[in-house]
Amino acid sequence: MAYELHYWPGIQGRGEFVRLALEAAGAPYVDVARGDEDEGAGLPAMLHYLEDASVARPPFACPFLVDGRKVIGQTAAILLYLGPRLKLAPAGEADRLWLHQVQLTLADLVAEVHELHHPIASSLYYEDQKKEALRRSEDFRRTRLPKFLGWCEAVLQRNAGNAQREVPRLVGARLTYADLSLFQVVDGLLYALPKATRRTLRKTPLVAALHEGVPRQRRLAAYLASERRIPFNTQGIFRHYPELDA
Amino acid sequence: MAYELHYWPGIQGRGEFVRLALEAAGAPYVDVARGDEDEGAGLPAMLHYLEDASVARPPFACPFLVDGRKVIGQTAAILLYLGPRLKLAPAGEADRLWLHQVQLTLADLVAEVHELHHPIASSLYYEDQKKEALRRSEDFRRTRLPKFLGWCEAVLQRNAGNAQREVPRLVGARLTYADLSLFQVVDGLLYALPKATRRTLRKTPLVAALHEGVPRQRRLAAYLASERRIPFNTQGIFRHYPELDA
Repeated sequence: MAYELHYWPGIQGRGEFVRLALEAAGAPYVDVARGDEDEGAGLPAMLHYLEDASVARPPFACPFLVDGRKVIGQTAAILLYLGPRLKLAPAGEADRLWLHQVQLTLADLVAEVHELHHPIASSLYYEDQKKEALRRSEDFRRTRLPKFLGWCEAVLQRNAGNAQREVPRLVGARLTYADLSLFQVVDGLLYALPKATRRTLRKTPLVAALHEGVPRQRRLAAYLASERRIPFNTQGIFRHYPELDA
Repeated sequence: MAYELHYWPGIQGRGEFVRLALEAAGAPYVDVARGDEDEGAGLPAMLHYLEDASVARPPFACPFLVDGRKVIGQTAAILLYLGPRLKLAPAGEADRLWLHQVQLTLADLVAEVHELHHPIASSLYYEDQKKEALRRSEDFRRTRLPKFLGWCEAVLQRNAGNAQREVPRLVGARLTYADLSLFQVVDGLLYALPKATRRTLRKTPLVAALHEGVPRQRRLAAYLASERRIPFNTQGIFRHYPELDA
């Protein structure tokens, strides 16, 4: 049975981290909220899980995955669940937990990227918190972005065998969901903050090599060239407001 | 062998979520950074894992747990690991994943509580971002706090059997680490934002009952009355600045 991915249509957002894993693995899935309401899909099908009191274990927010009777929310938890099933996680509890740790740290970075343009409230427009966003982005470019990507670089440096690999891996020798997520984070940052991100990537060459190499995977390349890949835009998490970059 | 917990001394912070689990289970553990440098503990012992290039799998930040050769960062990942070992998690993959989802959602709430007093940058003092904090806290009190605690209330309502229990549980019939964490979040919120939190708790009676009942567990009660429990203060995540409450 196909997995059901539930996420806002029209943006990549946090749903994209799950989508990349499903696409790279060639797993059958339905992107429910982008489907047709007349066929039982669309937004109402997604909102059912978030709003209907009959759902025993309601996700707090999307994305969430429905696999048979299981409803799994929280991006990192979804990938923890899918990783072994899609062969995008190593064997063994210790390695899987380390992979999950890396993913949770990337999730923290993604949360900070969202706060860049919404430092006061998600419920307000960017224009209503632009002054605060200018202050916040300055600190992000100077301290947080180098710290996060610097940590990813250290993880890549210390993963044995990367020196011999054309495309470095975060955990173990094979592609994992965290590699896909780091590709996505860097891709989003290059869209949102091209100047600051390029400057940081010059100091994190393994992160840059991963970002360049990961999309060459055959299935991923096909996905990225397809209409299923929603372009970055200023509704998503990674937003390009030139005034926030430098 | 005793678990090693590594966290900043002097504040509860995110380390407290791990500490509560270890204490409630009566597990042997060493609070490393609060120990004596002359005996190989203290801050240098913690900073080794964060800063030394010889650490193969460096945590991004504390808290982290050291169990033999394993080094596990990210609060929710630590609890995912400890849960079954401390008998603070249900049996079965689906139930454990749901418990982890609940924990990750509480972690999101904790992150937003931190942003309340640091909406611009962690590297700046509160006083240097107070104007922005006033704006952010207004939205938090009005929309985010009711949304998060309302979701916890729904989770408690829908967990079968809670109507018959004196102290409701988030997942299953027995105490889990998420119950301990929700107790801690509410306790911290009552310290930081007493007015807004009391108002919200009147609409979430099961959350209030959990917060009242959980600390009656024998080992937890002993811990909370001991000197090991660091009092809340304005260095931690939950900070009482009266101007942010209403």
